[in-house]
Amino acid sequence: MANVYDAAYNLEKAIRESDDYKNLKQFYENVMNDETSKRLFNEFRETQFQLQQKQMMGEDLTDADVQKAQMQFSLIQQNEAISKLIQAEERMGMILSDLNRVMMKPLEDLYGMPGGFQ
Amino acid sequence: MANVYDAAYNLEKAIRESDDYKNLKQFYENVMNDETSKRLFNEFRETQFQLQQKQMMGEDLTDADVQKAQMQFSLIQQNEAISKLIQAEERMGMILSDLNRVMMKPLEDLYGMPGGFQ
Ligand SMILES: [Ca+2]
Ligand SMILES: [Ca+2]
Repeated sequence: MANVYDAAYNLEKAIRESDDYKNLKQFYENVMNDETSKRLFNEFRETQFQLQQKQMMGEDLTDADVQKAQMQFSLIQQNEAISKLIQAEERMGMILSDLNRVMMKPLEDLYGMPGGFQ
Repeated sequence: MANVYDAAYNLEKAIRESDDYKNLKQFYENVMNDETSKRLFNEFRETQFQLQQKQMMGEDLTDADVQKAQMQFSLIQQNEAISKLIQAEERMGMILSDLNRVMMKPLEDLYGMPGGFQ
């Protein structure tokens, strides 16, 4: 089994050394090192999280919820550091989703569907 | 970026070549090549899927649902081929979950929580 874990650690290392990860890290630090951007970003994330929780619980979003999210979204769009971070997150998210799909391919082949038995 | 995908394909290859995957494949084929086991296994999976869907939709399980699941579960427990398959699936599930955790470690380090921004 060592082989599988070795291969996973190699993948982890390749991710850390990739330009996409280094950019993400830099943009994250840029946001965290600027008080205004940091506060704005954390509030935006918190709102996203709360709305997701509500939706997962089957609760309706109120007009106040939607307005708050829209207001925060328009503020972060005007913030260059945050915009760059969010773009880098989206790119990293697509890459990780690709990598995960590759990793799950053997199960998909066996069970004839994405994700296999899971 | 080629590096990250190369590393992922290496991981995929290591999974395919692992004893755990080969065992899983063999046990899956054993079940699928025996008509009774195949039918029993597919019915069990279908029931599991239906009950999960109900729970995700927030619907209550009926007593009939629970009884059907218990009946099928006791039948598959008495079937050696299926029991072996299910054990192999559980083991593979744990391994894939480990590998996924390793892959997500760089994000966890950056964001200070499992899964990072996702
Ligand atoms: Ca409304
Ligand atoms: Ca009842």
